[in-house]
Amino acid sequence: MRGQSFLAVDWGTTNRRVYRVGPDGAVEDTQRDDRGVLAIAAGGFEAEANALRARMGDLPMLCAGMVGSNRGWAEAPYVPCPAGVEDLAASLHWIEPGRTGIIPGVKWHDEGRSDVMRGEEVQLQGAVLSGLAPAGALLCQPGTHCKWAWMEGGRISRFATAMTGEIFALLKAHSLIGAQMTNAVTPGDEFLRGVADAADGALLTRLFGVRAAFVTGASGGQDAASYVSGLLIGSDVRSQVKDGTTVHILADPSLGVLYSAAIAAMGGKAMILDSHVAFVAGITHIWRSIA
Amino acid sequence: MRGQSFLAVDWGTTNRRVYRVGPDGAVEDTQRDDRGVLAIAAGGFEAEANALRARMGDLPMLCAGMVGSNRGWAEAPYVPCPAGVEDLAASLHWIEPGRTGIIPGVKWHDEGRSDVMRGEEVQLQGAVLSGLAPAGALLCQPGTHCKWAWMEGGRISRFATAMTGEIFALLKAHSLIGAQMTNAVTPGDEFLRGVADAADGALLTRLFGVRAAFVTGASGGQDAASYVSGLLIGSDVRSQVKDGTTVHILADPSLGVLYSAAIAAMGGKAMILDSHVAFVAGITHIWRSIA
Repeated sequence: MRGQSFLAVDWGTTNRRVYRVGPDGAVEDTQRDDRGVLAIAAGGFEAEANALRARMGDLPMLCAGMVGSNRGWAEAPYVPCPAGVEDLAASLHWIEPGRTGIIPGVKWHDEGRSDVMRGEEVQLQGAVLSGLAPAGALLCQPGTHCKWAWMEGGRISRFATAMTGEIFALLKAHSLIGAQMTNAVTPGDEFLRGVADAADGALLTRLFGVRAAFVTGASGGQDAASYVSGLLIGSDVRSQVKDGTTVHILADPSLGVLYSAAIAAMGGKAMILDSHVAFVAGITHIWRSIA
Repeated sequence: MRGQSFLAVDWGTTNRRVYRVGPDGAVEDTQRDDRGVLAIAAGGFEAEANALRARMGDLPMLCAGMVGSNRGWAEAPYVPCPAGVEDLAASLHWIEPGRTGIIPGVKWHDEGRSDVMRGEEVQLQGAVLSGLAPAGALLCQPGTHCKWAWMEGGRISRFATAMTGEIFALLKAHSLIGAQMTNAVTPGDEFLRGVADAADGALLTRLFGVRAAFVTGASGGQDAASYVSGLLIGSDVRSQVKDGTTVHILADPSLGVLYSAAIAAMGGKAMILDSHVAFVAGITHIWRSIA
C-alpha cells in the first residue's frame, strides 16, 4: 500500500506510541500514552482505535506488539524464523481488511530451546532496511526481556531472549539484597566490577556476595544496584558476545549506555541506534509490502 | 565443659529446634517450633530462653544461627576462615558466662568476594568431627542460600553461598513464568533437562525459554517447576563441582536428592548426610571445647 498515509501503533504491555506516517515515510505526528494492553479491557480495543483515529486522522492503521497476543485485541500467530518484511506482511492479521491490521510476532525453535518476540521484529527490520545496521548484524534490544537477534540477508535468522531486566526488578523489589539496591544504576566502577565478576559464571554466588559484603562491612550499604546490574547485564552479554563482535543496540540511551559498557568490557564493539527511527522504518516497509 | 548436660538450640530465621544433650553426647529430648528470630520481638529473647528451660530443663544453653545476628538476641561477631571448633568456642558470645552462649558465625573474604554463614558452621564441624565426612571434604548445605564449604584438617577453609533457593522462590511467586511453576519439583526428566541446559551458562536466556515454550505450545503448561529447579541447581552445582568430585550433602532428603541428581549428572559423586546428627555432634564438640 505504497504512497498512502497510515497510522503506525507500537502497542505494548504498558505503553503505546502512535505515529502518523506520510506517503513519503516521514513522521507527521506522534503521541505517547499509557494505554498499553493491560490498561484496556477485553472488547475495548475497537473503541481505542476509534479514539486514536479521532485524534490522529481517519487512516488505515497497523499495530505491533502485545496487542497481537492472546491478552490483546486479537491473536496474530507467530511467524517462524527466518522472518523478513515480506513474511510479516504476508501473515498480517486483519481486524478489518485494508483498514486495521496487526503485525505477527516471530518465533524460533531448535532442539531444546524455544523463543518468541512480539513488537521487536518491527524495530529489527527497520534497523536493517533503513541502513542503521548492515543486513547481516547482531542486534540487541535491552529491557525487561532483552532480545538478541542475528540478522542474515535482512531477515531475522535466529534470536534469544534473556530475563535480565525482570530478574533485576525481582531482586530489587523482593530479595534479601533489595534494600541495598536503592541508588540509580550508572556505568561506573561498581557496574564494571559486576561485569567482570560475571565472568566466572557463578551468578547465584555473586548475588549472595552483595549481602555478605554488606553485613561484613566490606562494601557500602546502598550502592549495590550498579553492581547487581553489572552482574546481570554482564552475564547476559557474556552469553552472546565474543571478542570483536559488533553489536547494534536498540534502546533508550540510559540502558543503551549500560549494555555498551558491558560489551566493550568483553572485547566487543557497540553502536546505539535510535529505536523510534527503526520502528517507523520497519513498519513503513511492512506497510509498503502489503499486497 | 565436658561431662555436663546442656541445651543446644538451632535458632534460625523462621524455625527453632532444641536438643537436650546428655553428658555422653546423646540426645535425651528434642522439640521443634516456629519461634524463629523473626517471630520474637527485640528484648523478648531472655523470656524465650526461660520458657525453653522450663520445658527442657534448667541447664546451660548454647545457641547457633541467626539468633546471633543483629536482628537476633545479641550480635556474635563472625570468626574468619580457617575456622575450627576451637575458634568457635574461643569466640563464643556469652549472654551470661557459663550459662547462655551464642556461637559466632564464620566469614570469608578474598580479593573481590565476601561470604558469611551463621548456623551452618555447627553442622559442618559436626559432619567432620563425627566421621560422617572426612576431615578434608567438600560439603554442601542446600536451601534458600546454598552453602558450599571446603574443609581442610577439620576446619572450614573457605566457602561460597549461592542464592539458589531464594531465586527459585522469587521466580515462582513474582515472575512471568511463576504461573507455570505450580507442580512439585521431582528429580525426573524435566529436572535433568534443566541441569543439562545449565551447561551453556546462559541462565537468563534459559529462564525466558520456559515462557516461550509455553506460548508456542512446545512444552506443557504447569510442569516448569522441575525444569527451573534443574536450571538453578544445575548452575549452582556447575560452579563448584568438577568431574569426579565427591560432595557430602547436609540437607533434608527431598532437597538432598535433587542436588544428588545434579551432582551425578555433572560427573560428581554425592553422599547425603543426616544434618540433625551433624548439628548435635558439632555443638557438642564446641561445648566440650569451652575452656
